[in-house]
Amino acid sequence: MAGSNGSATGDLKSQFLKVYSVLKSELLEDPAFEFTDDARQWVNRMLDYNVPGGKLNRGLSVIDSYKLLKEGQDLSEDEIFLASVLGWCIEWLQAYFLVLDDIMDNSHTRRGQPCWFRVEKVGLIAANDGVLLRNHIPRILKKHFRGKPYYVDLLELFNEVEFQTASGQMLDLITTLDGEKDLAKYKLAVHRRIVQYKTAYYSFYIPVACALLMAGENLDDHVLVKNVLIEMGVYFQVQDDFLDCFGAPEVIGKIGTDIEDFKCSWLVVQALDRVNEDQKKILYENYGKVDPDCVAKIKALYDELDLKAVFEEYESTSHKKLISSIEEHPSKAVQAVLKSFLGKIYKRQK
Amino acid sequence: MAGSNGSATGDLKSQFLKVYSVLKSELLEDPAFEFTDDARQWVNRMLDYNVPGGKLNRGLSVIDSYKLLKEGQDLSEDEIFLASVLGWCIEWLQAYFLVLDDIMDNSHTRRGQPCWFRVEKVGLIAANDGVLLRNHIPRILKKHFRGKPYYVDLLELFNEVEFQTASGQMLDLITTLDGEKDLAKYKLAVHRRIVQYKTAYYSFYIPVACALLMAGENLDDHVLVKNVLIEMGVYFQVQDDFLDCFGAPEVIGKIGTDIEDFKCSWLVVQALDRVNEDQKKILYENYGKVDPDCVAKIKALYDELDLKAVFEEYESTSHKKLISSIEEHPSKAVQAVLKSFLGKIYKRQK
Ligand SMILES: [Mg+2]
Ligand SMILES: [Mg+2]
Ligand SMILES: [Mg+2]
Ligand SMILES: [Mg+2]
Ligand SMILES: [Mg+2]
Ligand SMILES: [Mg+2]
Repeated sequence: MAGSNGSATGDLKSQFLKVYSVLKSELLEDPAFEFTDDARQWVNRMLDYNVPGGKLNRGLSVIDSYKLLKEGQDLSEDEIFLASVLGWCIEWLQAYFLVLDDIMDNSHTRRGQPCWFRVEKVGLIAANDGVLLRNHIPRILKKHFRGKPYYVDLLELFNEVEFQTASGQMLDLITTLDGEKDLAKYKLAVHRRIVQYKTAYYSFYIPVACALLMAGENLDDHVLVKNVLIEMGVYFQVQDDFLDCFGAPEVIGKIGTDIEDFKCSWLVVQALDRVNEDQKKILYENYGKVDPDCVAKIKALYDELDLKAVFEEYESTSHKKLISSIEEHPSKAVQAVLKSFLGKIYKRQK
Repeated sequence: MAGSNGSATGDLKSQFLKVYSVLKSELLEDPAFEFTDDARQWVNRMLDYNVPGGKLNRGLSVIDSYKLLKEGQDLSEDEIFLASVLGWCIEWLQAYFLVLDDIMDNSHTRRGQPCWFRVEKVGLIAANDGVLLRNHIPRILKKHFRGKPYYVDLLELFNEVEFQTASGQMLDLITTLDGEKDLAKYKLAVHRRIVQYKTAYYSFYIPVACALLMAGENLDDHVLVKNVLIEMGVYFQVQDDFLDCFGAPEVIGKIGTDIEDFKCSWLVVQALDRVNEDQKKILYENYGKVDPDCVAKIKALYDELDLKAVFEEYESTSHKKLISSIEEHPSKAVQAVLKSFLGKIYKRQK
């Protein structure tokens, strides 16, 4: 079973990657711009470096979700293609955010390779490349969805989710700036708001929303679905915060720097909730320092407070709550979509 | 006459600025994001710093153009308001590009004040602020144009023009990178392509296109208008290149660095066309160096080649050509729109 699942997944992924090549070729011949050879080469390399190298979970989820929504019915090649196109639009959106996020966070590695802005001769041109990635999305949508009844809804969906993500990034950035003055501001509600906006909408809500639109649904009728997906997104980001400190860099593809960066991470919020006076002093004196000794002291404190166990407890409680919210939904097909999504991230190691 | 014109313009501008306040308030209460007080303050300050401080020519042109297109007819308050909203969307677009451009060009000043990313505590958060500015546009369009028959056209217009501008920026950036290896690549056709894409669409085409859409026109029927506006945009950017070197910093609001930055400026292209062997050597040895002595040598060479006169000649020839292209247009109203635009930039000092 695992084997056949594995190869089915492999097949799906290779089909999905073929759609990437189609979209890339179209973009490199976009008549709205007169490409020079150099420009075409630049975009080609930039796309290959930044778009297809992730786990592709977000993108693949659109196809997955659409299949589950159309339970039983055979999907045409065209439907699979269109669902894949929307999946890639989400991957493009992700690439755009990651390229810019790495610049702002001054990160070193991403998906097991140097961040794009660190590649020789790229530097801050990466900021414009991020913008280009973002601009490719409406180009793709126009080409493939212009005539569809849900075209405007798609444009608005991508616009709204991008706005929410950028707003979440802002919260993250200004909270971190503020945190440097006062770690006491790092409360669970603050953490939650940041991660809801910076992660949940674009990672969890939008793939399912794309599938719903393709299936002819009105998004206003799916508030419960949205809420469950946002909860899942929060859970996913808590995992991300956990893995930033406790994950294996060779597995997650980057070296975490949340401690150095003074991030309002779920871990520091939990630590602040549990420290005694001495431990609190250690936290305040060492959090947000680049010095590896300071980082080590924070990690030792996290161990002392047994945050791994706190996280495991959180993980299993969240999972239970999510499952019961999902089971409240009247449609078995929608339940299947949501459970499939949850299954992909529960107890993930990367 | 000049006086009454002046006060009419002043009035128009203050009316226009009132619309900015309305839009800003709406954005700071956007229900798609749960603002904290800090976040609202940040966006408020960021908008005031970056959006309304320019010449506002692009924005005001939408109202101007729309009035001329509706020749004779009285405009309702609502029409003026909507034209102003579109004008502000263009100013937002401009702000977005400038914030990011200044980061990439490592610039110091803009519109007579430090670049946003140089403001204390801002730094690279400015990259995300640029993204936010960009994201405000579809929020504004959705709020004010959702029900209009040309809503999708507006969304697509802004998307296409942003794509073209970002593509022009890319050309600019990679050509500059390449130029460092070989100044001989700096030809007039290369310069033209860069400026057409990075400047002309968003500075010249989009304001008129917005007015045309509001007037119920189909943009596909206005290729001649588009072409004239693009020519005007190229002319405008040649002025920009000229002013970067020969303009008064206190008038243009920034200190030009095109020489230091190895830019494919219209001036260096003209110089390359006119140098003898000795002068060529000076150009190759000193162009693109930060050292003020090198910059001074380039400026002295430009004087020796009398590039000021070359520019004046270009300016008057371009003006004549543009006027005669404009007069080919069958509609007097459209001619008036285009001539008004040209009048605003001819022989500008800033
Ligand atoms: Mg980061
Ligand atoms: Mg970040
Ligand atoms: Mg993280
Ligand atoms: Mg610049
Ligand atoms: Mg630039
Ligand atoms: Mg310039």
